[in-house]
Order: sequence, then structure tokens, then C-alpha cells
Amino acid sequence: MVKIAIVGFGTVGESVARILVEDPREELSLSMICNRNVARKKVEWMPSHVVWTDDFNTVIESNVDVVVELIGGMYPAVDWISTALTAGKAVVTANKQVIAEHGSTLTRQSVEEGRPLLFEAAVAGGIPIVRGLNSGLAGDSIVQILGLLNGTCNYILTRMEAGKIEFKTALKEAQEKGYAEADPSADVDGGDAGAKLAILSAIGLRCPVAIEDLSINSIRPVEYVDFSYANRLSSTIRQVARAQIVEERQGSVCASVGPTVVPLDSELARTQGSENIVVVTGNRGGRTAFSGHGAGGDPTGVAVVSDLMEIATVGQVRTVWPTGKARGNVEVEYDAKHYLRFVVEDAPGILAKIATVLARYEINVDSILQEPGWSKSELPFVVTLESCNTSSVKQAVREIEKFGFHAKKPVWMPILDRGES
Amino acid sequence: MVKIAIVGFGTVGESVARILVEDPREELSLSMICNRNVARKKVEWMPSHVVWTDDFNTVIESNVDVVVELIGGMYPAVDWISTALTAGKAVVTANKQVIAEHGSTLTRQSVEEGRPLLFEAAVAGGIPIVRGLNSGLAGDSIVQILGLLNGTCNYILTRMEAGKIEFKTALKEAQEKGYAEADPSADVDGGDAGAKLAILSAIGLRCPVAIEDLSINSIRPVEYVDFSYANRLSSTIRQVARAQIVEERQGSVCASVGPTVVPLDSELARTQGSENIVVVTGNRGGRTAFSGHGAGGDPTGVAVVSDLMEIATVGQVRTVWPTGKARGNVEVEYDAKHYLRFVVEDAPGILAKIATVLARYEINVDSILQEPGWSKSELPFVVTLESCNTSSVKQAVREIEKFGFHAKKPVWMPILDRGES
Repeated sequence: MVKIAIVGFGTVGESVARILVEDPREELSLSMICNRNVARKKVEWMPSHVVWTDDFNTVIESNVDVVVELIGGMYPAVDWISTALTAGKAVVTANKQVIAEHGSTLTRQSVEEGRPLLFEAAVAGGIPIVRGLNSGLAGDSIVQILGLLNGTCNYILTRMEAGKIEFKTALKEAQEKGYAEADPSADVDGGDAGAKLAILSAIGLRCPVAIEDLSINSIRPVEYVDFSYANRLSSTIRQVARAQIVEERQGSVCASVGPTVVPLDSELARTQGSENIVVVTGNRGGRTAFSGHGAGGDPTGVAVVSDLMEIATVGQVRTVWPTGKARGNVEVEYDAKHYLRFVVEDAPGILAKIATVLARYEINVDSILQEPGWSKSELPFVVTLESCNTSSVKQAVREIEKFGFHAKKPVWMPILDRGES
Repeated sequence: MVKIAIVGFGTVGESVARILVEDPREELSLSMICNRNVARKKVEWMPSHVVWTDDFNTVIESNVDVVVELIGGMYPAVDWISTALTAGKAVVTANKQVIAEHGSTLTRQSVEEGRPLLFEAAVAGGIPIVRGLNSGLAGDSIVQILGLLNGTCNYILTRMEAGKIEFKTALKEAQEKGYAEADPSADVDGGDAGAKLAILSAIGLRCPVAIEDLSINSIRPVEYVDFSYANRLSSTIRQVARAQIVEERQGSVCASVGPTVVPLDSELARTQGSENIVVVTGNRGGRTAFSGHGAGGDPTGVAVVSDLMEIATVGQVRTVWPTGKARGNVEVEYDAKHYLRFVVEDAPGILAKIATVLARYEINVDSILQEPGWSKSELPFVVTLESCNTSSVKQAVREIEKFGFHAKKPVWMPILDRGES
């Protein structure tokens, strides 16, 4: 019987407690709950033997076997996890930020102390992808991980498409429904998915990466018109997180997060609302996909309790984290087809000017899409490019931006090929 | 370093050996290969230290730590697994038949001997669903498992639809491509999927079931015309394996395998070719889907090597199998919408006769579909039924079968609702 302390009694903490109390398992016993100003957190359904405290030291000095860290954020979470391991406690956490940045140090400490550190809940909530990579596909050599890792972005993008609405309206809706926070930056600007991708790269591709090395683009510039043009390409738009072994340079991966044009018939496009999906490609086993609820108290709570069950039944569980430095392992540039969207004040010669710049960078245009019915003063149109390096695209766009005809800043996104998605 | 013997050097055995030899892991060492008439099996890429034998006793008496059982079939596999555990060896197997029938006894023996028995490869090949249920979703209470567990059936059915061809043609094609065996019975008649479903019911729903208790229907009676009618219902046809907790009767599940009408926009319908998918619904975490390659040497080999890695790194791994008897736990009858297809020699009054029988069983007709252009002497048409119990449907169909107007035996299939699939 494993004695458990929940540290951080928010939405996920409460779900974990509810599962432990309402679906009791003989291996697990909830002993303690720790939260700031804990008095206001007390709930009547909690068994009376559970100790409430607002002092983390009480947890450390108690006889609990496992500390469930659910306070979120970097500090003091990272120190508390380390303190708990030093005190001989096993740790379960849902903290992607801490694991993405300190996974290497903390898993090493976990091995040294002989105490498990599990974090299934840190990536894709209820989808058991950490276990899937760490043990289920351990027999394969994974070469690519492709995912929709942020339910808020997926909700916003699928709502923009279905409701023919703009980003701000969809964001507001997501906030009202509790899918997005008051400050949505971590979600929509890609930091959240970036942290999760860093964890997946480490445990799946065996390549530790630094979040600040990743190529991360916000979904904020995406407009409804982009869905309308993407549809003409039999595609839609998703915030795609992607990491891929670079064959030419051992120990490095190409890793990026950002809005991406994906084929309508792909698994990524079919992932609706706040769902998450992770598509893993192995050298031997081919593609395996995991999908489900990537966030929310209950799915995340299930992931935490699954980790607790593993500690209780297996005992010594080790998460494999690659050794070696994380900085400098990311190739930011990669080859892909590209989607460029311009909104211009129409005048003769615009296309010629754009085409001339692209030609100078040896970029081949694949198609030009311009739908009728738009105002001449804010005319959106799209140029798709044959496969070329993102570095050339960025340079070319930077040059094109200098022309005076833009009504809005141009937007570029990579296009995922049918075979890749 | 764990020393491994592969017993049964067929397609999967060779893939396992190739992974161990070509992608070496410091934790794993291939020591021995055992096969009948082993001389003809020898391959030049095998390292010289690997011992070849055709005597299973040599394996048992050797110092190997893990026996990988890949001979398939019930006997002598079940005895060899038991003998290996008794001899203090861990066992990894891909043998669904043995685990479906003797999982309870063998996992108990495994616990008693303190030696792991793992079988990730026994269900859905390269998809880590056994681990997903046993540990990844251990924190949830699973209430339903829905799957396409037989790649041969999925290949045949998707080919029938795409190529507008009949069952026999698609089967022949599958045999030529190596997707189906010379005797396809185990695949197309549902026994293979039934064995896998029995394993999933035990480890996922914690309800052991006997294969002979399951409701299993062959896909042989499905014709191309059924796809054409299913399409008019915005649906297609898949061999669906399904197990679901029966709330009214504790310790029992409703479990069936057979051709099923599924909505075109469901994950099941979108699973093409020889792929597998398993959709798991938990009380807390909602739906989680796992998809990928359900068969083939390499994906199955990956599952075997993943099990080997778990034994090598974690050591004491325990597969949780519920105690208690397996017989009598299956509810064969369930409520569902139904699809009935008749092929008749046309004459006035046929529909009235059918409708009268259905009415007597208090079954409500939902729609009648009859496409133009068919011969009057072999006229296919479809009646869909509102939700009703399969037992009434079967009785009604048995009665309708007695009429003289049939050119072919009527076919019935359950219809999966949008929300269910």
C-alpha cells in the first residue's frame, strides 16, 4: 500500500483525489493534501484520515511514499521535486515545463536515489504516450514524432474553420468554455507544445533538446481566409509539433512547432476540438498513432493515477532519459512545401514582384490561388511553393515584406505532405 | 544483459532476430534459436555465437534468461511456455490463442515463479495496446473496448469497397499479397479477432471471457452490394470486435466479433488496409485510440523486443490478469440498430411479409433502401431497424428465412451509432 501526498489541489489535483477516493484501489492510499491557504480548499467528500497542510515540509517529513506534484510552473516545483526525491519519496508530476527543462537532471537524481520519477501526465494528458515511447515502442528505433499537443490551439483552429470565425472570436469562445486561460500565450504562441515536444524528443528520439532552440511559431496570424485557401488545397490548418531525426548529423533533430497546412484526410486533420494526437514513426514498426483527451482534470488525473499504480505494482520504475547536453541539437531549418498568404492593396505588377524575389532564391512556385469576391484594398491571395528550405523562404518573405503593397504582414506555413501526416 | 532464446524461427522470429542483431541494445543478447529441422533455417547474417538447436530441452537446460515463444498454435506452445516458467525463464510470446485460453493459469504461474510473462505481440501486433491497458490507462475504469483487430479482414473489406469487388476476389488478392493464409478461416470467420478480444477483455475490462462464449460472425456473407447500401447510410462495413461492461450484471461483458455497419466519419471506418485500431473508453478519461500495424514480421517483432527491453530494464514485470472463471461471463445479446439485407426473386407482397414478421417481434423499421438497376430475379434490398435486441432480430430473420422468395440467405449486421464508434 503506497501512501500518497497531492501537492497542488487545483483541477487536476482534485480529479486525482476523486479517482483515489471514489474508485479505491487496494494498492493506493491518499494520505495528505498540500496547498497554499489549504483551509479554503477543503471539500466535504474527502475521508477524514487525509491530512491537509499548507507546508511542503510537512509532506517531506511525513511517511508518505509518493509526492504528486501538481503546482505547475517552474519554481518552486523543480526544487520540490528534487527535495522529495532526496527525501526518499517517489515523485509523479504533470509538470511539462519542469520535465522539459530539467528532465535530464531529475531523472538522473531519480536513478541515484533509487526512487521513481514518472510524468505520463506531462504530455498529452490522458494519452499514454510517455509509456508508449518509453516501453511500448522500446523495441523500435523511432525516427519521427508528429503531434497535435495543445488542445487549446486545436480547439481554436477547428472552431475557426467550422464557424468561419476569426482567431480572436474563437479564442474568446475557448476562454469562455474554459479551454483557454486569460493569458493564452503559452498555448497559442507554442511554448506549451514546445515543452511537450522537447519531452517527446528526449524519450522517443533519444535526443534531448532545449526549448529555446526549437523553431516555434504562434497561431495568432492565422485567419479564417487561410482555412478557405487550405481547403482549396484539400487541406486544413493545425498547430503541428514535429521532431525528426536528422540522418546527416548524428545526435540532432529537426524540431518545430507552429501552424501547418495538413491534408484533410490525414489523422492530424481529423483530430477535432480539444483532442490531441501523437503519430510516431519507427524504422521497423512503421506508423503508430495515439489519440484522445490531451487535457482536462479527469484525463490528466487518469495519467497521474496510472503512474501511481505503476509505482505501487512494479516498484522500481525507471524513465529512460538520454544523457548528454540539450543545447545545440536542433536543426531549425528543414525542407518542405510552403504556403504563403499575402493581403495586399491590389495594383498591377504585385505578383511579378513577388515571383521575382522567389526566383532569386531559386524557389519554385507550385500554385497561385486567388478567390473572387474580396475587396481590392485588402485582397488576400496565396502562393504555394514546391519543396524548398525554410531558411530561403524566411529570407524571401523578409524581402517581400519590404514592398509597399501589403495591407497585412505576409504569413508563411509549411505544408505537410500526404505521406508525412 | 539478458540472454534470449527464440523458439520458432518463422517471419516474426526472423524479425526479432534481425532487430536484436542489427539494432543491438546493451541490455539484450540473442543466444539461441530453436526450430524444427533447424539446419534449413540457418541464415548467414546470424552472429556465430548464437546456438542453433531443434530440441526445446536444450533451451530449457541452457542458461538463457528469456524464452521467446513464436511457434504459434495451442500445442505444444502452452506446455513449452509453462515448462519455461517452471525452469525459471521469463517468457515473451506472440501467441494469442494460448494467452486467450490459458492467460489466467499462465500469468498465475508467472507470479508464483517470479518470472515475467509478457505478450504485447499477441494483440494488434505493433500497437502497444496491452501495455496501454495494463499500465497506461491503469488509473481509469475502462467500460468499452472497440477494435479492428484483424488486418486480413480489414484488408479484404476495404478492398471490396474500393475495388467494387466481391469477397472471393478480395480474399484471393489478400492471399496473393501474403495478407491472408491458404486457409483463411481463423481470420475471416472471426476466431483470430475473438482470441484477441478475449485478451483485451481480461486485461482492459478486468473480465476474463471464454472464446466459445463470444458472439462471433464471419465476414464471408458480406457482398459488394452491402457497401453500396452502407454508403447510402453514410457508413461502411468493418469486422468490429467489441466488448463492453454490462452495468446490470456485475462481472459480465457484452462481447462480439463480426461484420458491422460503421459511420464513414468514425475512426473505425477510416482505418484502411491491413491496419488495426483499438478505441478504449474509460469512465474518467473518455476515449483513447491506438492505431497502427496490427501484423507483419517487423511490427510484431518490435512488440516482442519492447517486451524484452522491459524485462531487461525493469526486471520484475507483472501482467495483471483477473482471477475467477472465464465461462459464462458473456452477454451474447445486446441492443443495437440493425441492417438487414435481402436478395429476393421479386414478386408483389414481399415487403409486407417481412414487415409483418418484424412487427410481430415489436421491431420498428427505420428505413428501406432499394437501389434501381438490379435484376428482378436477384434483387437486393435493405431494411434498417431502430434499436432492438439482437435476439429478436435473429429470431425474426430465422422466421423470414422460411419464405420462398429468397435468392440468397438474408444477412444481418449491427449498426454502430455515431457516438459509439
